[in-house]
Amino acid sequence: MANNAQNISQSRPKNIIIMIGDGMGPAYTSGYRYYKDNPETEEVEQTVFDRLLVGMASTYPARVSGYVTDSAAAATALSTGFKSYNGAISVDVEKRQLATLLEKAKALGLSTGVAVSSQVNHATPAAFLTHSESRKNYTEIAERYLDTDADVILGGGQRYFSEELINKFTAKGYQHITEMSQLNSVTTPKVLGLLADVQLPWVINDKQANQLSLLTQKSLELLSQNPNGFVLLVEGSLIDWAGHSNDIATAMAEMDGFAHSIEVVEQFVREQKDTLMIVTADHNTGGLSVGANGEYVWKPEVLHQVKASPDMIAAQAIAAQEWQPIVTNLLGFEPKIQEFATLTNARMQGNEAMAIALRKLIDIYSNTGWTTEGHTGDDVQVFAAGPGAKLFSGHQDNTDIANKIFSLLPSSAQ
Amino acid sequence: MANNAQNISQSRPKNIIIMIGDGMGPAYTSGYRYYKDNPETEEVEQTVFDRLLVGMASTYPARVSGYVTDSAAAATALSTGFKSYNGAISVDVEKRQLATLLEKAKALGLSTGVAVSSQVNHATPAAFLTHSESRKNYTEIAERYLDTDADVILGGGQRYFSEELINKFTAKGYQHITEMSQLNSVTTPKVLGLLADVQLPWVINDKQANQLSLLTQKSLELLSQNPNGFVLLVEGSLIDWAGHSNDIATAMAEMDGFAHSIEVVEQFVREQKDTLMIVTADHNTGGLSVGANGEYVWKPEVLHQVKASPDMIAAQAIAAQEWQPIVTNLLGFEPKIQEFATLTNARMQGNEAMAIALRKLIDIYSNTGWTTEGHTGDDVQVFAAGPGAKLFSGHQDNTDIANKIFSLLPSSAQ
Repeated sequence: MANNAQNISQSRPKNIIIMIGDGMGPAYTSGYRYYKDNPETEEVEQTVFDRLLVGMASTYPARVSGYVTDSAAAATALSTGFKSYNGAISVDVEKRQLATLLEKAKALGLSTGVAVSSQVNHATPAAFLTHSESRKNYTEIAERYLDTDADVILGGGQRYFSEELINKFTAKGYQHITEMSQLNSVTTPKVLGLLADVQLPWVINDKQANQLSLLTQKSLELLSQNPNGFVLLVEGSLIDWAGHSNDIATAMAEMDGFAHSIEVVEQFVREQKDTLMIVTADHNTGGLSVGANGEYVWKPEVLHQVKASPDMIAAQAIAAQEWQPIVTNLLGFEPKIQEFATLTNARMQGNEAMAIALRKLIDIYSNTGWTTEGHTGDDVQVFAAGPGAKLFSGHQDNTDIANKIFSLLPSSAQ
Repeated sequence: MANNAQNISQSRPKNIIIMIGDGMGPAYTSGYRYYKDNPETEEVEQTVFDRLLVGMASTYPARVSGYVTDSAAAATALSTGFKSYNGAISVDVEKRQLATLLEKAKALGLSTGVAVSSQVNHATPAAFLTHSESRKNYTEIAERYLDTDADVILGGGQRYFSEELINKFTAKGYQHITEMSQLNSVTTPKVLGLLADVQLPWVINDKQANQLSLLTQKSLELLSQNPNGFVLLVEGSLIDWAGHSNDIATAMAEMDGFAHSIEVVEQFVREQKDTLMIVTADHNTGGLSVGANGEYVWKPEVLHQVKASPDMIAAQAIAAQEWQPIVTNLLGFEPKIQEFATLTNARMQGNEAMAIALRKLIDIYSNTGWTTEGHTGDDVQVFAAGPGAKLFSGHQDNTDIANKIFSLLPSSAQ
């Protein structure tokens, strides 16, 4: 133990970046490897996840919520080191507030920030920044952000921030932006960037944009101005949303967006040797499997052909008279006659039914499996690099991840 | 690299034990933790898998077979360090023989052995002991075992070994046994133990038996008589078979049998500090998920109530007039009227249909998900302890596992 404590002290990082792939269970990173594989070469190329893997984590919530966590209880565990009930935002099972990672960091004079692809007041960033008895209290959570003193708040969520609330943020010295193009104008903290009404655009519909990477890059630039260091949360939030919809094409594109953000941080860690990065998932979504239906194949090449999210394909198909060629073009493959008959029927039921039918068709052509539109209790992976990374090796609980991070904060935090 | 080589040489083990949980993807070890959890205590207890986790491995076969491996190609990768086609037993894509781990060990004067719960000539042990163009060549594989000089061959498979073949084994000095009760009579190598017609009994039907643990214990006792050391393969073969049947109650009981075998080896490694153990899976079977169908629950307590394998429950239900009370008793819960109607229909279609209906009912009551009756391409975990264990940390390919083991064999092997 003495030896261990010594190692920790020798390798205490100045900056800590925790990155969460929401819902990103092991099948997502396996599938992403094959999605990114160049079939022209004999070997299968490694991904950033392969480079950084160090361990795994269990994700079960407090006993009262069984074995399968939601994003709120999981983020509470990762942010505070305590298990709570599903729906809890950094409060315990008695609804008492639990000190969060970003609160502890702020109290130590570090800068703090969140950069996410969901609304900024969604469960995961909320549990790192503040407290609430329920993740559903979006307005309350947005208001409480005013008291967090966080230096960087970047993501979506305009609809949850009233003009009055925005004015309070600007009165506190926050630069308020609503467009990606305004990012360049932000050169010092603090910033409140609400860049979409709710979520940022799906990567599949805007593959060049890499919005989360840009937000990550800007967060690093702003937060690293503090000589005391910083703690940053980055979340690839929409992997989970695509998983809930059992939407493999959209999920793999979101994985790509998240992977690019990780690569931005990986580069920062290589250059700034005093920075620790930890990447994990809060839970597994969808019961995804790489291959399904008794066949020993998975066809990621099908997913690369899909040119828009099934939601968007559905909307275009419903808006057009001659919709079949549009669907064929956007799917990147031509459905069979019987499949078009199914789509015809779904199209008459509306956008949601049409999108579901399109997703199922993509599942069939790629041979992708799902077991649920919710979460599962399967363990998730842990990835890390930089000083202290080895602490996260092997198996651990999600609360252990928080406690290990706490042990790496400057000592007055403990 | 020089440093690395030095570390390897300092930590070269005398004995190496590789244990394969066939089909045991991450959801199996997560599920097993909750299956073993004592709900009376606040914490969720760790399992042997949690204690030993060090990394993960990709499992894809040679390019010609896509991204989803079968057990033969996977065992070939783990045994030889080369990717091959699905179905290959330690031959490459050109059908040339590849040197196996047990052949290399034998050539170095080490003792070798296999202890499995399938027939001894099934794909995994076959790829560690010999070569064949197809895993289906059961008779050929059994005959080739005669030339392997393996010291311990324990498992099922009587039907594949003719009296003439058995005589050839005994002429070579093998003690031939067919009953677990004869194990005590075996005190020195060599032994050919064929303890069942095909597979060993399901653990769920004989929970006290722990047959694989007993075979593992006996293998260690026999092989450790060689002062040069030994290499042993232990396979929890039937986890995969239960996965193919989407049979969660049977799968968790097989996980328990395999876990007990791992604990036997873990104890041996603690006592014999010169022994390395590596545990992994060859691939993931069934697309299992802990929780399904949109509900955030998994109920392992349902599985503990199931008193026999669905196959056996089906057989008993079909043999009896008053079958409903038998089913209720053996399932451990009383199906609803509509569910009994489904079972009545299935029962009239015969044993297989009845077993499937019972498995689906157990899935519903436990909220278990599956996506396939085959394999998936999801990565698997790697567990290790003993000298050299750290080599297996982080991400690796299944061929890397073989190559790392080779690097730990006495140096003349390389």
